[in-house]
Amino acid sequence: MITSNRILKIVIFPVIFFFFYSGFLHAQQAKYIFYFISDGMGMTHVAVTEAFLASQKNEIGFERLSFTKFPTTGFANNNALNRLITCSAAAGTALSTGQKTTINTIGMNGTRDQNLYSIASIVKREGYKVGIISNVSINHATPSVFYAHQPSRNNYYEIGLDLISSNYDFFGGGGFYQATGKDKDKPDLYQLAKQAGYHIVRGVDQLNNLKRNDNRVIAISNFLTKAASQDFVIDQNRNDIPLSLLIDKAIELLDNDKGFFIMAEEGNHDWAAHANDGATAIWNIIGLSDAVERALEFYKEHPNETLIIVTADHETGGITLGWSGKNYETDLLLLIHQKVSFSKFAHLLDSTLKIPENQNYELILKLINEYFGLGGEGELALSDYENKLLSDAWKCWKGELQISDMEKQLNYGNENPIAVTATRILNHKAGLGWTTWAHTGTPVPVFAIGQGHEMFNGYYHITDIPKKIKMAMGLDK
Amino acid sequence: MITSNRILKIVIFPVIFFFFYSGFLHAQQAKYIFYFISDGMGMTHVAVTEAFLASQKNEIGFERLSFTKFPTTGFANNNALNRLITCSAAAGTALSTGQKTTINTIGMNGTRDQNLYSIASIVKREGYKVGIISNVSINHATPSVFYAHQPSRNNYYEIGLDLISSNYDFFGGGGFYQATGKDKDKPDLYQLAKQAGYHIVRGVDQLNNLKRNDNRVIAISNFLTKAASQDFVIDQNRNDIPLSLLIDKAIELLDNDKGFFIMAEEGNHDWAAHANDGATAIWNIIGLSDAVERALEFYKEHPNETLIIVTADHETGGITLGWSGKNYETDLLLLIHQKVSFSKFAHLLDSTLKIPENQNYELILKLINEYFGLGGEGELALSDYENKLLSDAWKCWKGELQISDMEKQLNYGNENPIAVTATRILNHKAGLGWTTWAHTGTPVPVFAIGQGHEMFNGYYHITDIPKKIKMAMGLDK
Repeated sequence: MITSNRILKIVIFPVIFFFFYSGFLHAQQAKYIFYFISDGMGMTHVAVTEAFLASQKNEIGFERLSFTKFPTTGFANNNALNRLITCSAAAGTALSTGQKTTINTIGMNGTRDQNLYSIASIVKREGYKVGIISNVSINHATPSVFYAHQPSRNNYYEIGLDLISSNYDFFGGGGFYQATGKDKDKPDLYQLAKQAGYHIVRGVDQLNNLKRNDNRVIAISNFLTKAASQDFVIDQNRNDIPLSLLIDKAIELLDNDKGFFIMAEEGNHDWAAHANDGATAIWNIIGLSDAVERALEFYKEHPNETLIIVTADHETGGITLGWSGKNYETDLLLLIHQKVSFSKFAHLLDSTLKIPENQNYELILKLINEYFGLGGEGELALSDYENKLLSDAWKCWKGELQISDMEKQLNYGNENPIAVTATRILNHKAGLGWTTWAHTGTPVPVFAIGQGHEMFNGYYHITDIPKKIKMAMGLDK
Repeated sequence: MITSNRILKIVIFPVIFFFFYSGFLHAQQAKYIFYFISDGMGMTHVAVTEAFLASQKNEIGFERLSFTKFPTTGFANNNALNRLITCSAAAGTALSTGQKTTINTIGMNGTRDQNLYSIASIVKREGYKVGIISNVSINHATPSVFYAHQPSRNNYYEIGLDLISSNYDFFGGGGFYQATGKDKDKPDLYQLAKQAGYHIVRGVDQLNNLKRNDNRVIAISNFLTKAASQDFVIDQNRNDIPLSLLIDKAIELLDNDKGFFIMAEEGNHDWAAHANDGATAIWNIIGLSDAVERALEFYKEHPNETLIIVTADHETGGITLGWSGKNYETDLLLLIHQKVSFSKFAHLLDSTLKIPENQNYELILKLINEYFGLGGEGELALSDYENKLLSDAWKCWKGELQISDMEKQLNYGNENPIAVTATRILNHKAGLGWTTWAHTGTPVPVFAIGQGHEMFNGYYHITDIPKKIKMAMGLDK
């Protein structure tokens, strides 16, 4: 008896354990994938949003977002082959294909002589349904790396053609940028998409009318900016399609027994961060959190077969939760006084100031007070220093400010000097600093929940993310 | 046969699996703990260091440090009870006791009427040996939260008395700050420590002469700054004790069958970051990486009984890997031209400029060229914009610069205007931005390896870190 017991212990138990354990590991595979890419979102943007939400409850701390409650987190570097600070094309190609490439390259290798295939195209070939969502144009860098192969991200028209021939099941959010080509001399991409069998729907109502079996859909907002992008969340009205509704409808249209792959980009965040506009960036991250909430509802119904990843391609703006003029203090609640994005405010200034009799500084101050609260009472009062920043911006707009090109670049970048100074003052009062109009090289956060989530812990390059997703799906053989 | 086979599958296998698996989980506990706290180190400081190391090999990317190869990573928020942006006292108390407290409080609750007990004091009571290491003074905030209970971090003398009565086995690094009290009228702490049975050794040679059974040791550098701190790594010579040697000796002195707990603070990093001095901060992180390497060697000999954590109390300076004046470019290799810390350079300026005939701008430019390479060839040449920054700093030093208090705060903080302008120009040329002289509220990174490391994945508050360590040690019952 003792001998057989020992055999049991030494030989049989480990063998049983091994088979049981390995069986357990492979029994389940993720077949419903949600891949959220928040363009330009570093960990500090996330924390700033959480601190802003806590401040609305008069709490000192960080109110968790839907995805910051996920059980697994990681960090990822994102350098391109030829530059430490990446761009959305190279980082997107890394996130979609698992390969590093060069700046501005879409779904091709670094020397641009070979196509790289995205995880979306691979799962499509395997029979999964595929949805690609973005609130900027659907032929912009981040969505395009999932279906296109182009030597330059600026080949918008050719990227649009690649979209149409992708045969993917759902596209949603923004529209085609340069739908008739750079010189407006090409066949309209919307028409070509229709001819290829895509059903183009516009706005919330048409989107809501889609039925479960409708497929090959391109769903775009009624109102698009010149860049064919949706409005910023802070500027949206009920005609705009929120990212959360796009997720809801994508789930409804794509749900099937084989599985689906949904990539959703929060793309407007990046533009807000490029302009160093904290409030606008925050509201778009809150919109992202709402969208992830919808994916989480699906996950709760299919916990063993769903994987949700939320990550970013790079950080934008070099945002910091703290600024030297405030020392150790912050006052994030002040950001609620901002009513419009930097972009909408700049348009508003343009249309106001093109009328010569409107060109006076008092009117500018009135608009800044109306849309940002600045010049108000208490914390919103303008200091001498801040008044000088605004009057300098006004002089700059009039072409009367004598500063070097470097100072111009540091102070205003390519933004409207008045709009960017207004947002900067509000950001500084809130305790937010920014260091650049461009991207930075800080590692991006990765959040994961669902089947295979444990793999996303650690510190790796963003090229590992699609590889890990493939492993979670059992497609890595 | 079929029935018994099914019983085996349905009942016995899962039971066997459960016991095997749970036994496997609980069989091992961590008894050797290394708790590295890098004061002021955010994830971006880490990435900047990695990118700098890669640049030295002419590579575009991130060269992993000893601890950035750890299998587990996490993020942690660090807000204090009464402020979003924490300080080293409140964050340290969180990291040592698992409880939030108020700004400047050492090892006490928020209202400062109750002591909070650190994990070091708990494991000491359980019979483990305890070592507390820091390269700033050993009665500074971060080391003190592991042994002291004081309503203010500025009670350096009383903290020193708490150190002596802690009965811990090893203290190393910096010395006692205000060793005879604020007014230099109290009994000398070194004498009191000797009377209490502590063996005080100074410098590398005396430290190396210590034998395995020597205990109750306070090992300090031969040369300490006015703050009783060690020199920055960039300024060190062979008389200084590197953090790695302190770890080596602590292991040798504390190693015993019951186990040990070593807290090692990289404290100088914080001061470099407060001064926005990138090169100095980087060299101290490299020193930290070397120290962690020594802990890793011990871990490799005791993999199932060792746990190493590397984290930070908060981020300092709002550093970003990217700066608006460089757009998407970086040139981290330029930082090798910096020969001394901001602090040593400021001392050098002070001693130079106190001689009236030295007070000329050409000499300043010569010194800046000598110690930072600035004004040299190619990338190191000074632009008109940079020359103006330097001449403004020179005017500020002479008291001749007419700028507002806010501009003075933003440009120079409390630093020597010339030294801080020299480091800023070099940082900007390298592509590094900074937003504050203070701390920021961005989450800190957590890196873990060894027994129980998996627990450190996720996104939590720094108060959870000592709780997780206790769990890994089996001390959470």
